[in-house]
Amino acid sequence: MLEELKEKVYKANLQLVEYGLVVLTWGNVSAIDREKELVVIKPSGVPYDEMQADDMVVMDLNGNKVEGALNPSSDTPTHLELYRKFNGIGGIVHTHSSWACSWAQAGRDIPAYGTTHADFANGCVPCARGLTAEEVGIEYELNTGKVIVEEFEKRGIKPSECPAVLIHRHGPFTWGENPFKAVEHALVLEEIAKMASRTERIAAMGNYADIGIEQYLLDKHYQRKHGKHAYYGQGK
Amino acid sequence: MLEELKEKVYKANLQLVEYGLVVLTWGNVSAIDREKELVVIKPSGVPYDEMQADDMVVMDLNGNKVEGALNPSSDTPTHLELYRKFNGIGGIVHTHSSWACSWAQAGRDIPAYGTTHADFANGCVPCARGLTAEEVGIEYELNTGKVIVEEFEKRGIKPSECPAVLIHRHGPFTWGENPFKAVEHALVLEEIAKMASRTERIAAMGNYADIGIEQYLLDKHYQRKHGKHAYYGQGK
Amino acid sequence: MLEELKEKVYKANLQLVEYGLVVLTWGNVSAIDREKELVVIKPSGVPYDEMQADDMVVMDLNGNKVEGALNPSSDTPTHLELYRKFNGIGGIVHTHSSWACSWAQAGRDIPAYGTTHADFANGCVPCARGLTAEEVGIEYELNTGKVIVEEFEKRGIKPSECPAVLIHRHGPFTWGENPFKAVEHALVLEEIAKMASRTERIAAMGNYADIGIEQYLLDKHYQRKHGKHAYYGQGK
Amino acid sequence: MLEELKEKVYKANLQLVEYGLVVLTWGNVSAIDREKELVVIKPSGVPYDEMQADDMVVMDLNGNKVEGALNPSSDTPTHLELYRKFNGIGGIVHTHSSWACSWAQAGRDIPAYGTTHADFANGCVPCARGLTAEEVGIEYELNTGKVIVEEFEKRGIKPSECPAVLIHRHGPFTWGENPFKAVEHALVLEEIAKMASRTERIAAMGNYADIGIEQYLLDKHYQRKHGKHAYYGQGK
Repeated sequence: MLEELKEKVYKANLQLVEYGLVVLTWGNVSAIDREKELVVIKPSGVPYDEMQADDMVVMDLNGNKVEGALNPSSDTPTHLELYRKFNGIGGIVHTHSSWACSWAQAGRDIPAYGTTHADFANGCVPCARGLTAEEVGIEYELNTGKVIVEEFEKRGIKPSECPAVLIHRHGPFTWGENPFKAVEHALVLEEIAKMASRTERIAAMGNYADIGIEQYLLDKHYQRKHGKHAYYGQGK
Repeated sequence: MLEELKEKVYKANLQLVEYGLVVLTWGNVSAIDREKELVVIKPSGVPYDEMQADDMVVMDLNGNKVEGALNPSSDTPTHLELYRKFNGIGGIVHTHSSWACSWAQAGRDIPAYGTTHADFANGCVPCARGLTAEEVGIEYELNTGKVIVEEFEKRGIKPSECPAVLIHRHGPFTWGENPFKAVEHALVLEEIAKMASRTERIAAMGNYADIGIEQYLLDKHYQRKHGKHAYYGQGK
Repeated sequence: MLEELKEKVYKANLQLVEYGLVVLTWGNVSAIDREKELVVIKPSGVPYDEMQADDMVVMDLNGNKVEGALNPSSDTPTHLELYRKFNGIGGIVHTHSSWACSWAQAGRDIPAYGTTHADFANGCVPCARGLTAEEVGIEYELNTGKVIVEEFEKRGIKPSECPAVLIHRHGPFTWGENPFKAVEHALVLEEIAKMASRTERIAAMGNYADIGIEQYLLDKHYQRKHGKHAYYGQGK
Repeated sequence: MLEELKEKVYKANLQLVEYGLVVLTWGNVSAIDREKELVVIKPSGVPYDEMQADDMVVMDLNGNKVEGALNPSSDTPTHLELYRKFNGIGGIVHTHSSWACSWAQAGRDIPAYGTTHADFANGCVPCARGLTAEEVGIEYELNTGKVIVEEFEKRGIKPSECPAVLIHRHGPFTWGENPFKAVEHALVLEEIAKMASRTERIAAMGNYADIGIEQYLLDKHYQRKHGKHAYYGQGK
């Protein structure tokens, strides 16, 4: 069943590898058929290069396996909670991509520092609070989803206007209208997470004492390549 | 029309991907036919691997589409303003490359710290001021071009002596005598932006307490590989 | 002899290259046949692209070469000591991967900052103490193994619960039930070492003065791409 | 003439690209025939993918072109000075590799922080002093070579024991018994330059307040993957 959606989820999972967002078996993509209320998700711990479209697991929204020989991703209850509460979304991605995880581990929202970010989200990318010992102890993955939903409600952020979240100490979830859009958002999130950290580093150095090149050396190199008497290259 | 120039602009756009300067559909390259006063530019939001030379859009310098089935890059008015005011240039590139954007987001000029920079530009790479709410509100992309021109005029920098600029909060534009040179400059800009940030970090650590290797361990490793009684490798 | 194990060790060594964990001839993988008490290990200083499965060297646990035309890795005595004392392990990897080495050179344990780390080890990855001049002077590589074992005993860490260690000033060793698992652990170690350093940098910037984007510019970019009157791309 | 050596120099130049040490036409490799006292060097400003072995230029040690249709690298006088004064060397490399240049731009020696460094050089990699306006004004490239030689003599470093130097504001030169060894040293230099900067960053964070994972979350993730009741993956 849902062969077409399985094929899409399978291909979207492979994009995670292609985009350098995952190592080993980390990460997972799912998609939902809103009409049938069924979710297709990557199986748990299967190497990307051995995985087949047919290995994708079909779940209902109550967490029952409807089809599939393999165990679904251990993060499945998080995905299901997001599908239940974020009505507009059609695909979800979870990765441990390095820069997004580093912000998550630091427990910080990713601030909107520029237009690359503004093209993606209508404000900061929130870092949801960490889970309590109780929330970790029972139904951990379900509670992860609940904490995400709580964070968006508390802050009044619409999932459609910010297609990403960080879980404190853990990493990012992203979503979109379909699984490919969710993967695209995981890629963009990693880019803006990287840029944001570099932006802070560069800004923090703003008052650093000048270590600039001497004017005569600047002139020499510029002129030997671009000046009237340039001698770099093979002439014009 | 302008089939040859379309082919060049198409190929130059693909170089952005090859050089790792763009992700997804970000970035754009244009070129001008100075005689005909026509500009060829990448269409907006088309994936690089689906794009054809024939998809390139032809614009006149007043912003009218002269040929092309697709919408031109949303940054087109910025390109046109630069072609109108920077007479010597034949090609323009805009990217969201990570290091250049990080400097732009931090709102800092890239200082000339060494000869790699001096081979590229005859002084710092300027970060143009941010646009006001009014400038963003109406004709945003055109005003972006105007702010670049204003910055070069205010500072007395010739576009031929510094083929790059950063827009505050946004990212870089580069140019050159043709679209390939403009792409080359986008690549070099990214390299010097990266080096400049690393230079500041290394310089800032200059007084850091010594954590150097012990002399006996240095000797041991050097000698076991290079000394008289070396035992690394398969002998000589 | 042990042709099958040689093939595995050979392939596991090549994975180090594939995963970007080594440059040149750096790094080595070994595996043990617990029944025969024989260890198969990479030869010293042989380029990965010239190496054959047949070049793998067979050693007994006392450090005698049992088979092989080439010299074994100069780190062999470290491997043997770990096989003697860590009974459960079947494969060992040593690399000079950049992030793990940087933590080792800084002399710091890698703290458990998040769940990527927790998926890997049940606590920090310890940095073993540096060797004394005496320990470096005689049987340096054997003493490296002894210091690792000492560190795990002193701290009460089970090798099965933390499949990695850093040697001060040097770099990482990792292990696993077989050579492929040991390589996998070397890869994960590099990822968590990278994330941990980035986490600290991002956390350290937590109080940095706001350099965020202006609201009007955020709105402009978000709306031109996602709003009702979006003009980025080719329409819907 | 010297067809065999041209072929080697050509191949060594291509390795710079393969190892990611150069962009565009940056960087150059040369080699010397000590018997004939002739040096083979890359032509100036020729793209690596268009270059042929036959394009290599033959120079005598006085800087006269002996054979070749193209201009030699503009850095040729630096190479020649090093061949004249460092008798044991057979090949020289110059790059603008990012990490080595960043140390050079910061004007700092690369300290020996660990065994990766000790395997390479018997002490720090020196950063030679910057050139004076006079030295830059006349015979700049020759003076660059002289400053390198002066630095090694002043510090009593043997070129055989440290196959690399940084030029302040500029970048690295490396050498070896032949051009391939010189390239290998350029690659290792880049690795140790990268590691050294990361080492300082990690060490500088040593007293940073603990941001470690909560014990219950560490346990949860470790146990769900590795514990008795693990539910990650497809079971055993």
